Amino acid sequence: MQRVLNKVISKDKINNMGKVAISRKVEKLRTFMKDQSLSAYIVPSEDAHQSEYICVKDKRREYISGFSGSAGCAVITLDNQLLWTDGRYWLQAEKELESNWKIMKDRVVGEPTIQDWLLSNLNKENKVGIDSRLISKGYYDSMKSTLKEKSIDIKFDEDGENLIDKVRESFRQEEEIPEYPKNPIFFLEDKFTGKQSNEKLKEIREEMKKQSVDLMVVSALDEIAWLLNLRGSDISFNPVFLSYVVVGIQTITLFVDESKLNDKTKSQLPSGIAISPYNQVFEYLRASDKQGKKIWIDPRSSVALYNCVSVVNLIEKINPILLTKAIKNETEIQGMKNAHIRDAVALIQFLAWMEEEIVEKGDETSHTEYSVSEKLEGFRRQQSDFVSLSFDTISSINANGAIIHYKPDETTSATIVKGMYLVDSGGQYLDGTTDVTRTLHYGQPTQHEIDCYTRVLRGHVGLSLLKFPNRVNGRDIDCVARTHLWSVGLDYAHGTGHGVGSFLNVHEGPQGISYRAIANPTNLQAGMTLTNEPGYYESGNFGIRIENVMIVAPVTTQFNNGKFIGFDNITLVPYERKLINLDMLTKDEINFINAYYKEIGEKILPLIEKTNNQKAINWLKNQIKQL
Amino acid sequence: MQRVLNKVISKDKINNMGKVAISRKVEKLRTFMKDQSLSAYIVPSEDAHQSEYICVKDKRREYISGFSGSAGCAVITLDNQLLWTDGRYWLQAEKELESNWKIMKDRVVGEPTIQDWLLSNLNKENKVGIDSRLISKGYYDSMKSTLKEKSIDIKFDEDGENLIDKVRESFRQEEEIPEYPKNPIFFLEDKFTGKQSNEKLKEIREEMKKQSVDLMVVSALDEIAWLLNLRGSDISFNPVFLSYVVVGIQTITLFVDESKLNDKTKSQLPSGIAISPYNQVFEYLRASDKQGKKIWIDPRSSVALYNCVSVVNLIEKINPILLTKAIKNETEIQGMKNAHIRDAVALIQFLAWMEEEIVEKGDETSHTEYSVSEKLEGFRRQQSDFVSLSFDTISSINANGAIIHYKPDETTSATIVKGMYLVDSGGQYLDGTTDVTRTLHYGQPTQHEIDCYTRVLRGHVGLSLLKFPNRVNGRDIDCVARTHLWSVGLDYAHGTGHGVGSFLNVHEGPQGISYRAIANPTNLQAGMTLTNEPGYYESGNFGIRIENVMIVAPVTTQFNNGKFIGFDNITLVPYERKLINLDMLTKDEINFINAYYKEIGEKILPLIEKTNNQKAINWLKNQIKQL
Repeated sequence: MQRVLNKVISKDKINNMGKVAISRKVEKLRTFMKDQSLSAYIVPSEDAHQSEYICVKDKRREYISGFSGSAGCAVITLDNQLLWTDGRYWLQAEKELESNWKIMKDRVVGEPTIQDWLLSNLNKENKVGIDSRLISKGYYDSMKSTLKEKSIDIKFDEDGENLIDKVRESFRQEEEIPEYPKNPIFFLEDKFTGKQSNEKLKEIREEMKKQSVDLMVVSALDEIAWLLNLRGSDISFNPVFLSYVVVGIQTITLFVDESKLNDKTKSQLPSGIAISPYNQVFEYLRASDKQGKKIWIDPRSSVALYNCVSVVNLIEKINPILLTKAIKNETEIQGMKNAHIRDAVALIQFLAWMEEEIVEKGDETSHTEYSVSEKLEGFRRQQSDFVSLSFDTISSINANGAIIHYKPDETTSATIVKGMYLVDSGGQYLDGTTDVTRTLHYGQPTQHEIDCYTRVLRGHVGLSLLKFPNRVNGRDIDCVARTHLWSVGLDYAHGTGHGVGSFLNVHEGPQGISYRAIANPTNLQAGMTLTNEPGYYESGNFGIRIENVMIVAPVTTQFNNGKFIGFDNITLVPYERKLINLDMLTKDEINFINAYYKEIGEKILPLIEKTNNQKAINWLKNQIKQL
Repeated sequence: MQRVLNKVISKDKINNMGKVAISRKVEKLRTFMKDQSLSAYIVPSEDAHQSEYICVKDKRREYISGFSGSAGCAVITLDNQLLWTDGRYWLQAEKELESNWKIMKDRVVGEPTIQDWLLSNLNKENKVGIDSRLISKGYYDSMKSTLKEKSIDIKFDEDGENLIDKVRESFRQEEEIPEYPKNPIFFLEDKFTGKQSNEKLKEIREEMKKQSVDLMVVSALDEIAWLLNLRGSDISFNPVFLSYVVVGIQTITLFVDESKLNDKTKSQLPSGIAISPYNQVFEYLRASDKQGKKIWIDPRSSVALYNCVSVVNLIEKINPILLTKAIKNETEIQGMKNAHIRDAVALIQFLAWMEEEIVEKGDETSHTEYSVSEKLEGFRRQQSDFVSLSFDTISSINANGAIIHYKPDETTSATIVKGMYLVDSGGQYLDGTTDVTRTLHYGQPTQHEIDCYTRVLRGHVGLSLLKFPNRVNGRDIDCVARTHLWSVGLDYAHGTGHGVGSFLNVHEGPQGISYRAIANPTNLQAGMTLTNEPGYYESGNFGIRIENVMIVAPVTTQFNNGKFIGFDNITLVPYERKLINLDMLTKDEINFINAYYKEIGEKILPLIEKTNNQKAINWLKNQIKQL
């Protein structure tokens, strides 16, 4: 699934959404703003952990604006209400926002950013309010430096009392207030993680000693889950739980709602761990600061954490978990491979079923984009160690496929007809996370559709085959997947690949393959996971995307053997034969596809045969005939 | 010629170099340091304009250390003397430095930078000295922030009196002190520049008004030359002159040694220009600051300029000249094309002459790398509007070709034998600047040499043929020139291309094609010049580089025609047929080369025919036969 440009809207709906009109909420917010002499109030999309996916209670921007897209930030002044969001969401925002809201174009050169707008529209020495938990240190620094020009102050919510929560509270009689989830946390066995938490802690403490710090704060939820070998289900699709961790040289404290931990889980926690209530982290840091402890905080963390520590005691630096977690160990690599094999079994059964329903039965009336996505989920649920989907399935027919972040709605999604069908989906398994996209055609494709698919496929195959020195950054190879589209004037407006967690978030940094500079702060290294997902989108007509997960691995080369790296494909699902123009492929490309078919035949076909699903067996055998 | 990784050593020698022993100079420096309570003194390589090439008087780092490489920074403490330089220069530094100097590895991950070293080795509240004119604001900010940790202060030379100049002064009796050049400045006619200085000023003033500034400081020498349509010869290879310019909304002041301007040149200066002595710029800025003028200074400029302006009056921002100068106008593009045609005539005559001397006459004793480079310069001098070389010619046989920044020495350079020969050279013409590399073979190449050359050529051709959307940054396409090398485990340790000035510096920003992030701060845009120079270097054996200059231009594509850009090749010199393995080339690649030969036949052959140089005519006809 596409990172950043393809965040999906969570299935969770805000309870009772819409009972209280947005205008009344905004009016109420303004009375609170006036009490605190605020000229503007910023409502970001993220939670206190700067998460991409958030739980219902944290959907404050959606609550105050009515806009439900995953990316966007609301700014309310005493007489304006604005929403910044990027091109994917302008149409949706227009539908969802009340008419007195103004949509601001995010990430468009020449259009004002939030900072620019505030600087132009506020007066000298005005005050802007924000919840310090919801803004990362990095973003805050940049905003502060812009607003300095007019001596505009950023004022944090007093006593951490979020003004949107206060608005919600004041409408308690009319609208139910969601609670934070109470879901149990469970221990992920060594056979899945490959490394005990004590071992991970030891390495981190070595790094802390090198930096001469006493404490390291961990606030990203997937980093906490990874560090403690724990998983939860507080947030849809991401198996994480709301918490903070503070690691000391001898100590470790987990800040979490303790009721989520049963005795068995507690017994598997690293030795000497202390458990404190979730919100106590701030008090703990303030007390440690008073004791003169040196405290390491990652700049991706919230300003609220930074505000607990005085400058002399602070070390601001990316934490070592980010990179260590990204480089998978042998157990995790094997787990990812195994999970992708079972995931392929599910997806292949689904694709065989689709072929039968849509092409053979020619039954074009009974299936919708949404209903078939439920069918696909059913096949995944049959796989061992399946936990949940890893994101909302994108299931789109014809023109809907051109909407990169399309999510079929249960009641209004389109009927599947004979045409181009794109399905981007994935699962969370105990041993790994999957993310795969295939584009099929259930009718007679045009030559143009075939040629476009073949160009996307050539990019996808070219990247799979690439060998490169290990100094290479993902940004440096992004164009390998694009040149065959570029040569005829085509392109796709998203990155080519993102990292994938090991039974963790489907979008994981720091690695990535993208022309967007920010997406790739590190070099590619053996053990990293990456998706390979070029596409092509023709507005109003069709969308094409082909996506595999790959693992970076050493490769054999004629010279300097061993010093170069490349990719191991671990997704094993056939491409759409109907859409391949053989005349456009080089010999190397054909050889790659044939070898891929052979691998599917060896690794997946026997498992399909075991299901006794004769349709699936026949379908697969037919799909993997050598070109 | 390769940017950054291939800076060449200037021909200029320091007068009387070596009469006073380095150790005595360092000793003297330390007495001055003690007078000012300095624990360390930094001696950068650059001049007050942060120039890549500098004049003899500004070679302070070479004077104090004895190291003559173009890149490197000396640090002298009370008991240590160190030189930071990158891998290209370690061998040379070892030869040139006295034994008590320590060579520090610059740009190597894990090795301490100057800042790191100072932080580790100095004590709290120590003072580090530097000449504020020789350090850019950007670099100073970074150093200051590192040294803050130990409260180490950076102290600028008092009254702008550089301590190295003071050392020189104190040895005046024993060693001559070089003077700044007094070379005349001349006006470059509109037929070469395509835009009058008044017009350029008008655009800049528009930008200044937008930013609400009163004055803009221009300190980069090529930006001043471009802005005023003037050229000089204060610095080898770069047709610039030592000066500053301060542009006001109505005013403009040129700070320069007025004796360099004759009446004719003065009459061609933009209307209303005032002329002040070179060093008066600092006083002028201080006075303007006192008057409350808002002053725009580019962060690539020296701290000395920044120190004249108070924070409230300062606008720190890249100036608009950088990008405007990089995008060539129609006149400049035509001039560049014309200059490259004449340059090709010179280089082709040289290559034909080489073939005759080395292969036909088999005369392997009478020619050296240096002497043939003089011959090549002779052919260039015959061309109309030739001014000078654009950099020291790299002329290298066999193993010397693997030394990327090789410069043949007049007395010690190798004899030309039958083998692989690399020549990287260029000229300054009134209508444009050239930079071209060809690799030849004057014997029987091995299959390995042929295959390596063909891989480099495929990268070079692939980049020439590339079409891409205009959002693309040079970094995004660098790998296109590398993948054929990568596939067998090979690579080259330099960027693929740099910008080229229009009768200005041969290395020009901001555009570039390189995996080094810093090299590409901007997107590629039609009108920009770029070199295309992949290579391969086999230490101890041979070096290969193939380099053309290209101009970014709109291209025709099947879809979205006009929205994509690509490259116009303007260098017109044949590749080495002997080194091409036809079996490795695709049809598109062969078509490109054949079309290139045809273009050379049409544009260059008639000019060679005019010279009546029959050897050259025959050689060229033979070289451009269709593959």
